[in-house]
Order: sequence, then structure tokens, then C-alpha cells
Amino acid sequence: MGKLLRINTKEKTFTFEETPDAYAGLGGRALTSKMVLDEVPATCHPLGKNNKLIFAPGVLSGSPAADSGRLSAGAKSPLTGGIKESNAGGLVSQKLAKLGIAALVLEGKPDDDEYSMIVINNDGVEILPAGDLVKAGNYEIMEKLWDKYGKVGVLSIGQAGEQCLKGASINQADMNGRPGRAHGRGGLGAVMGSKKIKAIVVDDKGAGRMEIKDPDAFKAANKRWVEMLHKHPVTGEGLPALGTAVLVNVINEAGTLPTKNFRSGRFEHAKDISGETMAETIEARGGITTEGCHPGCVIKCSNVYHDKDNKYLTSGFEYETIWAFGAHTTIKELDHIAMLDRLCDDFGLDTIEMGVALGIAMEGGMIPWGDGQAAVDLLSKIGSYAAEGKIIGNGALFTGDALGVSRVPVVKKQSLPAYDPRSCKGVGVTYATTPMGADHTAGYGVTANILGVGGTIDPHKKEGNLELSQNLQVATAAIDAAGLCLFVAFAVLDNEDGLPTIVDMINAQHGLTLTPDDVIELGKSILTNEREFNKKAGFTPVDDQLPEMFMDEFPPHNTEWDFSTKELSELLNF
Amino acid sequence: MGKLLRINTKEKTFTFEETPDAYAGLGGRALTSKMVLDEVPATCHPLGKNNKLIFAPGVLSGSPAADSGRLSAGAKSPLTGGIKESNAGGLVSQKLAKLGIAALVLEGKPDDDEYSMIVINNDGVEILPAGDLVKAGNYEIMEKLWDKYGKVGVLSIGQAGEQCLKGASINQADMNGRPGRAHGRGGLGAVMGSKKIKAIVVDDKGAGRMEIKDPDAFKAANKRWVEMLHKHPVTGEGLPALGTAVLVNVINEAGTLPTKNFRSGRFEHAKDISGETMAETIEARGGITTEGCHPGCVIKCSNVYHDKDNKYLTSGFEYETIWAFGAHTTIKELDHIAMLDRLCDDFGLDTIEMGVALGIAMEGGMIPWGDGQAAVDLLSKIGSYAAEGKIIGNGALFTGDALGVSRVPVVKKQSLPAYDPRSCKGVGVTYATTPMGADHTAGYGVTANILGVGGTIDPHKKEGNLELSQNLQVATAAIDAAGLCLFVAFAVLDNEDGLPTIVDMINAQHGLTLTPDDVIELGKSILTNEREFNKKAGFTPVDDQLPEMFMDEFPPHNTEWDFSTKELSELLNF
Repeated sequence: MGKLLRINTKEKTFTFEETPDAYAGLGGRALTSKMVLDEVPATCHPLGKNNKLIFAPGVLSGSPAADSGRLSAGAKSPLTGGIKESNAGGLVSQKLAKLGIAALVLEGKPDDDEYSMIVINNDGVEILPAGDLVKAGNYEIMEKLWDKYGKVGVLSIGQAGEQCLKGASINQADMNGRPGRAHGRGGLGAVMGSKKIKAIVVDDKGAGRMEIKDPDAFKAANKRWVEMLHKHPVTGEGLPALGTAVLVNVINEAGTLPTKNFRSGRFEHAKDISGETMAETIEARGGITTEGCHPGCVIKCSNVYHDKDNKYLTSGFEYETIWAFGAHTTIKELDHIAMLDRLCDDFGLDTIEMGVALGIAMEGGMIPWGDGQAAVDLLSKIGSYAAEGKIIGNGALFTGDALGVSRVPVVKKQSLPAYDPRSCKGVGVTYATTPMGADHTAGYGVTANILGVGGTIDPHKKEGNLELSQNLQVATAAIDAAGLCLFVAFAVLDNEDGLPTIVDMINAQHGLTLTPDDVIELGKSILTNEREFNKKAGFTPVDDQLPEMFMDEFPPHNTEWDFSTKELSELLNF
Repeated sequence: MGKLLRINTKEKTFTFEETPDAYAGLGGRALTSKMVLDEVPATCHPLGKNNKLIFAPGVLSGSPAADSGRLSAGAKSPLTGGIKESNAGGLVSQKLAKLGIAALVLEGKPDDDEYSMIVINNDGVEILPAGDLVKAGNYEIMEKLWDKYGKVGVLSIGQAGEQCLKGASINQADMNGRPGRAHGRGGLGAVMGSKKIKAIVVDDKGAGRMEIKDPDAFKAANKRWVEMLHKHPVTGEGLPALGTAVLVNVINEAGTLPTKNFRSGRFEHAKDISGETMAETIEARGGITTEGCHPGCVIKCSNVYHDKDNKYLTSGFEYETIWAFGAHTTIKELDHIAMLDRLCDDFGLDTIEMGVALGIAMEGGMIPWGDGQAAVDLLSKIGSYAAEGKIIGNGALFTGDALGVSRVPVVKKQSLPAYDPRSCKGVGVTYATTPMGADHTAGYGVTANILGVGGTIDPHKKEGNLELSQNLQVATAAIDAAGLCLFVAFAVLDNEDGLPTIVDMINAQHGLTLTPDDVIELGKSILTNEREFNKKAGFTPVDDQLPEMFMDEFPPHNTEWDFSTKELSELLNF
């Protein structure tokens, strides 16, 4: 499925290598996690020369399969100290695949402080000085690179990645050349910064289309696939209409919207930051309510948000971001939240980690609760390389440690996302057990817990939620390997033909004869590899549990966390 | 051996409790470590309500036994996340013992931000508001408390402990009422700060002498003991003459004085910061070259250092401090180093952790290498509650993480002290394996490696150094349980009658019939308890190894680190 492109960041050299047998047939998260396990010493320093940063398109990426343009990035995480896979939309995944590159691997570390940029196209690879991009934010970088190279795929780091902050993301140019898409979680931008790579340009001009082994079979499966995505109420209606922010009112109503650092599940100003309010605001100001994050997306949950003067402010403005900067910090002005989102895209930062960190800064008295302008000012310190920025930019746990705050919502040092684990236990089990650190996308139990997708399991009770999380984690790992958007899971969970359709597309593209069971086994093997890395890095069963602060009751339903460390730590023993 | 005094810091109440059987016969580190294991949930947040801060005099403390006035402090460490015992001189240990208190235990955590102070005397216990001490440094606190209460024992925290910084110490008033003695390592000052206890006064007026069960036997043993300490060249000559700083030239000459963040073992300006230069300076300025850290000390390695105007600047100015602020950072002016020591005593900070952190700040470009004034200015930010101070004050690893520095010399997140592990392997093994995090005092292999005390073992070779560290760690744990100063080990190692004399004193004081073997078994059981706590907290074998940066060769001897994680992690399996 393509070659490995290895870049030696110290020597500024590159090699193309035939994909070895051990990696054959793997794509996306399956490939990055396997390579990290095999090639990165688990106890190495995440910012040292022995870590590797690996980008891999999914096995369907580059094909016409709808919603298959997600790129996986993997490394040892500077945030968690464990393995990390973080995937994002944008243009790079499909272009790398079309260039015949199964994985792009950044290795080594320069001895000096000079930044480079990498240009990958059909003619080969160039490693160029990036002096004029140093200290630039992602908006400026992408504008410059699109001016120079056209509508190319771009991966870049802003000021956060340069500072090697644990909250640093790697951003991708979206379809308008703006940095609205991000490999957000786990601080992978810091790994790229440590290797002094400021930007990567991927241009597939001249590469032609991907070869499809059985075009007719592929076309038929993709047709079923598109129809399935269009027909499902979440992927066909809810997400296109209001974006992921459709969830604000839903999750608040369910009483599981974590408010004021997980003190309760309802935010009195939820309406002000809801998807409905956002869509109205976008429309009134001439923004865009529905847009795909990569070519071939049929869900189109992304958007463009304008400011009060009807000028572009930010894009890819998501539910998790709105929750983190909103209910978690009790900031209720959508414009402040949108500005915080923009700053994160520009500096290159994970919005979940930053929102939770700002809440911890409020908890520690650094800025007042609910003060949007103070939050904007504090986050801006990251862009100015100030000491306060080096605290916030390193995430919630780091901020808590800096300020002596013991109430910090993290698992494996990564901030919890936008659903309380006590009143949405399916996703709570995922937070505790995923090798990634607290992450809703690793096994989105909100489906059966609250959205009535893929069945119904009581979010407040223990029963069924271990199994729910386990099944979703396996399925998600497989979806991430395919390069598919996670949101296809809504349709897949409610359609018996969902998984077979995906398998049909993979088989048709690559001339394989996989069964749905093979794909499930692949999902399990990904999780097993990731847990093996973490174990070598020093993780133990106590890392598969929520922190002390969640042992308190959670209003309004007064739900309790009732999973033992033993049952959690054994959940993914396949 | 006395009662347990438990203080509920939330309710401001106290109880005296008969020492339960499980703790009978234990003192000092043996008692604090056992209590932490039994009473503190290993996965609790170190700054949360479930951690406990425990102070315990040694089993000889309060008696006339020479050098038996060390107080153990124990808790879950905010720095390492594991168990911590840190002991110090001063007046408290002997006074607590005379008041019949085997352990003082601070429990719970207030919900509000009001500080308290605790006064313990022969009439009982008072828990008083400490409003007028808030934001005060230890110099001011101790002056005020001695003015009010006389020459009492004092434990207090400065601005660092109030901020709950991981580098925060708990300081003890020395014999002149100055904060020159510290429970330095592991951030125990942050635990005291989290419980909002600003100071503890211990006054034994009216308590009378301790009962000695067999006064004649005790007197005879103590006589042998004092003679032994006087006769040994290290405890009788080297330490009294030049203090611990006698080591600067010795360790530099051996090529194992870590210089510029462990890049080489010789510092070109070693002479400027040597014990010889220090003693000359002290004498020329009218300071004190030799002083005990507690009543009954016959070694007297402490001192008082005056500034250029012949006025008091600092006291208890130690080798490790001089190394950390000196060779490690390449600062060569003893007056700057003395000022940094004073700031640490005043703000309440571990000098080793702060010196190593300043070196990392230099590594990360925050201040220039070797710039003493810049270091003073940066450390001063801790006293002014500035963001930079919250970075440095949280120690070397935290500073490295803030600045994206991967070359950080820590084990179990605690900074390495003043001997390179590659060219002084006996102490290197201790750094790697002690449950405390990198700590020379846990098993001071410098003895046989360099000082020719207790035999001779090549510091550059692997052979014999595992055993050396193991034996020293066991002996040290026992010495810490007795409340004896670690430096007695020099005499004990070179005298067959050393350990029997200690045992005779313990037996005579308490009416026991212990053998030397019992004391060795006690040492092992202490280590086993500590490792058990760490295991429950999530430590694994990979935590018993040096970090990646030490896998490089170390000049001038080009020594390498050649111990496997397996052999290190199994060293203390008794």
C-alpha cells in the first residue's frame, strides 16, 4: 500500500523504503501505533532524538470512498508519556496516499535551533530552511504556503509547537487554506517542534488517481455507503445543520454537560453557547454553517464563524471546543469562545486541553471564573512566549501543578472532554481505559447512552457500559485505520450493512478478501499494540482509573462512579 | 514510645491516641513510612484531603545520644508521586520526643483559604489563626515566633509552600532561630501548604528529661559513641573544619562533580566554590565555620556565612547546595550561591531541586549559563508569586517540561544530587533504585567509591556497586529510624563496634533486647514498605532506572552507565 518516507531531521536527508512485511496492509492508526511500538523506545523522552513522529493515511484514504480523508499522526506523547494517535481532516491524507506514501516518518533531532520545512510532491522531497516562518502562527504560515505552492496539503505548527508545549497541536490546512483542522490531542505539535520541522507541504499534482483494483465493486459499495450516511438522522441531518455543537443542548438536557470544572451537569447559560445560537449567529453574520473538513465528505459538520463585524473569525468550531471554553470555565459569550478557538488554531493548540487548563487557572485563582476577556488575554501569552503561556500551554495537569490545584480532571495526564463520566458511563469507561488518555473519540459511548444510536444503555447505571465502551473502542480503532471520519460510526452502528460496506470498499480498493471479523480483529490488535507500548513506558492498572475528584457524587442526577480499577484495567485484555 | 498526635486541619481539632501495636517500637523514617503506607491511599492527589503529613522523632531522639536529633517527615510526595521521607536537624525532634509524642500527623484539608498555626507544649495543643504570618518568609516567621515563644522548635513554610510548589521545603529553626535546616526534598512544604498550616511551634518547657530505662548502660554506650565520632577523620576533622563543602575539591578531583547539567565531571572554577575558599571567606568576614544543626551534635558541619559587609547572609550552607547552584549552573561566585541558598531558606525551597532547575532554565535559554545575578532574580520570582516562579519552584522536571528541555537529570521526577552516577556508580545505583527518587542520602556510595570509607570499590566499574548501594540503603533506613544524623555512617562503617553501640543505646533507652540483625531487618522492612507504597501508586521497574541522558559517556573518565533496568529494579527485593 505504498512506501515509507523517512526523514532524518538531523541530517536533513530522506529515504523511500518498501513497506516491510510487518507493516503490510496497515494504514492510519493501525500503522502509526504499530510503528511507534516497534520503533520508538517506550522510555525515551518524547522530545528527544529517539521519538518518531509518524503520519499515515488510512487504507481507504485517497480513494473516492466518502469521508475517508482522515490522517493519523502517531508518536510517544509529550502529554501522556504513552502512545498517541491523533487524527484530523484536511488535505494531506488523500494527497499522501495518491503519492504512494503509506507513512511519513520524522526521525532524529537537530543539534541546532534552525527550523526546516519539508515539501513532498510527485517529483520527490525537499527539505528547506524555514527561517521566514519561525515564530509565525498557523494562519500566516498557511497563507504563505498556499500563496507559494497553491492549494496543497499543509501540516504546520504555530508558536505552541515551537515551544514544545504539551498542549501543542499539528494543524492542517482546511479546504480554504485555514488552520481549522488539527491533530489536537496529546501534544504531537511539540514532537514536531522538537524536531525543528515548522511545516510540511504535500502536493499531489501529477500523481494521478489511485488505482482501484475492482472499480465496479468499489463504486457499488461507495454508493451504498453514501446513501447510508445521508439517511441517518445524525450524519444526514443533525451534524450538517448545526455542526457538532448540536450537542450542547442535548448534553445539557441530559444533565451531563460538565460545568465549572465538573461540579455539575447543567450550565445555566447553555442556550447562549448552543448549536442553535451558533447557527443563527453564523447565518446572521454571513458565515458558513456546513462544510466538510476534507474533499469527499458528505456529512459536512464543519463551519466558518464570523465576528460582530461580519468578518472571518474562526472555522471548524466544534462542540468540544465550545464546551471546554464555555461550560467548563462558565464563559457564556460565544464570541469570546470563538476567539479562543481562533487563538488555538493560530498558535497550534488542542482546544480541549486549553479549555480545561483555563478552567484550572480559574480554579487556582489566576483569572476569574467566567471571564472571557481574561481567558483570551491569558491564552494570548502563549503566542508571546511569556511564562504564563508556558504554564497554560502545557495543559490542565501542568497548570494545576503550577497553581497547587488538586481538582484536575485528567486520565493519563490528558484532560477529560465534554461529557461527565459519572452520568455518561459508557464514555466514562472509555476515558479511563483507552490507551490514549481521556478521549471521547476513542469509544464514543454517548451513542447508546444518550443519542439512542446503536441501542440504548442507561448512562447512569453500570450495567452494559463496560461492554459498550469495549465494543466501541475496537470499532473506532478499525475506523481510524481506514482513514474514515469517526462520525460514520453513527450510521454504521444503526445499519447491519455498515461494517460489510466498509469491508467491501477496502477489498475492492486493494484486491483483498477481508471479512468483517478480520476488521474487528484488526481493531483489537491496534488496542493491544497501544497497551503494550504503554506498559513498556511504565503504565499500570492505576492509570486505567479516573482521578480522585470523580469519586464525589455528580449533580443533578447525583450519579456515582462505580467501576473498580481491576475491572477497568482488564477491559481491553483481548 | 509515646502517643500519636493527630490534627484535623479542616475541623481544627486534635486527638492524642495511644500508639497502636502496628506502629509500636517504630520511630523516624520507620514510623512515617509505615504510617504513609497504611493510612494514605497511594493513588490520592498529594495536595488533596487524603494525603497526610507525618512528623516523627527517631527512637533515640530526645535522649542524650550524640547526633540523634533528626526529625523525619513523611507523606505522599507532590514531586515524585511516591512515598517520601525527608529528615532534618533543628530542635523539633528532641522536643516532640520529650513531650511524649511519637508522631505528629496532619490530616484532612480546609475548604477555605485561611491559614492556621499549631502550638504544641506541655499543656497541650492549640490551633490558632496564622493570618499575620501569611505571605511571610521563614526568616520573618521564625523571628516572630521566637520573639513570642522563646527558643522553641519551629516547623514552617515560606511562600513556596503556600503556593504548593513541588520544590517546597519545610524549614526548621536552627539553634539560632534561623531557617537554615530544611526537610528539603520531595515537596513536603507543599503538603503542609495544602493543609493551610503555616507554622508549628514545639515547646518542651516543663516536660522534663526523657526516661532512660538503663541509664548506666546508656551512658557507657553514648561515651563510646561520642569517642567514635570524634576519632573518625571525616566526622572528627573534615566536616568540623570545612563543613560538607570539604567535598567540592575532592569530588572535582575525582572527576565526578557534575558540571553544566551533567556534561562533564570537572568544573574549571571548582576552587572558587570550594570548602577551603568558603572557610577562608567565613573567617575573614566574621562568620562561623562550625556549628551543630541540633543540640547534642558533636560533628558540627553547619556554619554561618556573612556577606561582603560582614553581615549575616545565610547558614547551613552545604556542599549539595554549592554544587547545585555552582558547578551545575556554572555560577562561580560564592556570594551569589550564598544568596540563592538564603532565598531558598526564606521562601522554603529544596536547594538541590532549585539549583538543578536553574540549570535547566539555562539549558532552555530562560537565563544565561553561569549568570549568578540572573539566577538570583529568577529565583526571587518565587517570593513574588510570579509565573516564572511557579515554573522554577516546581523543580527541574517541571522547568524542563515548561521549556521543552529533554535533558533533565531526574529519577522518579526528583533531581539528581552532586555526584555523577556514571563515574560514582555506588551512588548512581542509589539514585536509580531508592524509593525516594534520586537521593544521595538514601545510600551514600561515595563512601567506598571515593572517600575510602567502609572499604574501597571502584567508582567507575560495575563490580560491587549494586551490593554497596543495597547495604548502604538498608543501613541508612535504620539510621533514619533512630533519628541519627546520616554522617554518623562514616564512623559506623569504619568501626566494628559502630552498629552494636547504636543498638546498645536503643536497648538501654527503651529497655529492649534488640540485636544488630534486628536493626538490619528493620532497615529492610522500611524499604519494603516504601516500595510497596510506590507500587500501589503506579511505579514500575522502569522507574528504577536513570533517564535517557545518562546513556551517553561522561568525561573526563568517559565512564558509561551499565546497569540494566532488571538488575536495578530487583536490587531491593528482600
